[in-house]
Amino acid sequence: MKEFEMINRYLAIDSGNRKDVIKGVGDDCALLKVPRGQRLAVSMDTLIADVHFIADSNAADIAHKAVAVNLSDLAACGAEPAWITLSISMPEFNEEWLASFNKGLKRIVEFFGIQIIGGDTCRGPLSITIQAHGFVPEAVFNTRSGAQVGELVCVTGPLGDAALGLMAAKNELVVPPSIASQLLKKYYTPYPRIAAGIALRGRATSGIDISDGLLADVSHISGQSEVGVLLNWEDIPLSDAAKSIDDEEIVMKAALSGGDDYELCFTVRESELEATRLALETVGTECFPVGRVTGKAGVRLMYNKEELELEHMGYQHF
Amino acid sequence: MKEFEMINRYLAIDSGNRKDVIKGVGDDCALLKVPRGQRLAVSMDTLIADVHFIADSNAADIAHKAVAVNLSDLAACGAEPAWITLSISMPEFNEEWLASFNKGLKRIVEFFGIQIIGGDTCRGPLSITIQAHGFVPEAVFNTRSGAQVGELVCVTGPLGDAALGLMAAKNELVVPPSIASQLLKKYYTPYPRIAAGIALRGRATSGIDISDGLLADVSHISGQSEVGVLLNWEDIPLSDAAKSIDDEEIVMKAALSGGDDYELCFTVRESELEATRLALETVGTECFPVGRVTGKAGVRLMYNKEELELEHMGYQHF
Repeated sequence: MKEFEMINRYLAIDSGNRKDVIKGVGDDCALLKVPRGQRLAVSMDTLIADVHFIADSNAADIAHKAVAVNLSDLAACGAEPAWITLSISMPEFNEEWLASFNKGLKRIVEFFGIQIIGGDTCRGPLSITIQAHGFVPEAVFNTRSGAQVGELVCVTGPLGDAALGLMAAKNELVVPPSIASQLLKKYYTPYPRIAAGIALRGRATSGIDISDGLLADVSHISGQSEVGVLLNWEDIPLSDAAKSIDDEEIVMKAALSGGDDYELCFTVRESELEATRLALETVGTECFPVGRVTGKAGVRLMYNKEELELEHMGYQHF
Repeated sequence: MKEFEMINRYLAIDSGNRKDVIKGVGDDCALLKVPRGQRLAVSMDTLIADVHFIADSNAADIAHKAVAVNLSDLAACGAEPAWITLSISMPEFNEEWLASFNKGLKRIVEFFGIQIIGGDTCRGPLSITIQAHGFVPEAVFNTRSGAQVGELVCVTGPLGDAALGLMAAKNELVVPPSIASQLLKKYYTPYPRIAAGIALRGRATSGIDISDGLLADVSHISGQSEVGVLLNWEDIPLSDAAKSIDDEEIVMKAALSGGDDYELCFTVRESELEATRLALETVGTECFPVGRVTGKAGVRLMYNKEELELEHMGYQHF
């Protein structure tokens, strides 16, 4: 068997047999059916070795993360994932690496019931581009631009773990091994909040996934909604692992500006908070109000009863 | 303005205002409407600097080619292009390069009436991944697997120019400057056969675009249709520029195994040939029968009245 065919075998996982895939991998194009009444939501992200993931980390985790990051964009919009395309460039043919990559890919694809419908393979520096495709009725598509003054800003889970895990992996933070492994799990294998995104349909007035850090991502909501946001540091949820770290400055920086958490951030009318909390609870997700939408432009933070004006502190691509 | 915003400005061309784009660039996902009765055809290709294009060539041409290559897959299936997503990684921020890239991108996007609906930008080795999205009624989606014994194998235009142009650019082939520039034009700025693909709907029994070389691509038809193909060297169309080159071996290799021509190769019943020729003529495309579908597996070539068995001679990704 040729190397090229082997790579295709590893990537074109035959796990899916979705009825909306008329023709999947193997022709010039895939042919797909978007169900009646649904709109197509798509998002594309590229992950580059040693920019977005650690090149020599577990290939199964790299596959997981590449898919998760893309599905997370669907979650932010309330879309239900259906298909992905995957283009991978690799410096060399490495069967062991591919087998591991395949394992991680298969696991997350099966977990979310999605199907790989095409892609590309070539030789080059390690990078992975994925496009995720999902369905959502037009009326409940969640954007960044619907936040209104007075609404609550909420997140779906603890923040900062992924960034702290990355610091631990780089030996920039010394923590006990059990803590490090808890934190790193969030960095390597995040689970996008798909069910939460769907539960928020028609409830959230705006939404985004936290990929670049809370401040950076909430600033997209505030910018595109033309409102301000006042966050309360005391309300930002932290995991027990993060709470066990003594250095508050490091934890704060990770929780506010660390990327890779892939929780959702959304706004909701205060009168809808309890209903929203219940809707999220039914899909096993908590709801943490962390601030409020204000009329004063920009993102600010209440810390020790002081209001701090904040620069964008999130991840910048350039 | 931040570099990141500038890059987005260069890439998120506001040329399109398609009604099927409910939400384009600027949110976590694009939101799209596939017209009733149509299916969605998608294809994703990655182009890596100095693998798929010459890194220091004109950025406008790089943009053109990256889009053209992807649209060509839609053409092969008879789909009508609608949207593209584009992910680009660049080693550095270079405004002049981006302005040129933007120019080429804008030109081809406007030419085909398509819209850029999203993508990603990051720092890294120069590479471009594009996903093309198009529409096609399910019944006329053209695959590689429908060829039947006795049918004719046809192509839509002269072959080998792009490969000969690339050789000229690399100084592996010495030709007069006017010839070199004609050949190179086909290499740098191919125009995918979109209108021909649509004209072939319901007529071609199988189809593929010639990206990896005629032999390699026709072998996908023969393999997936479980038939053989016998090509006639004398019937392979060559441009005047290619004909002006004395070395037949070089021309033959380029025409049969050179990639990047982006003509279509398709099969058609002999009784349909004239109707097909007329249908292609109305969209300004010629129809060249170059061989026949046979019952003997594999791809063979009639050359000087001898039948040659051929190895796959096309481009291999690895």
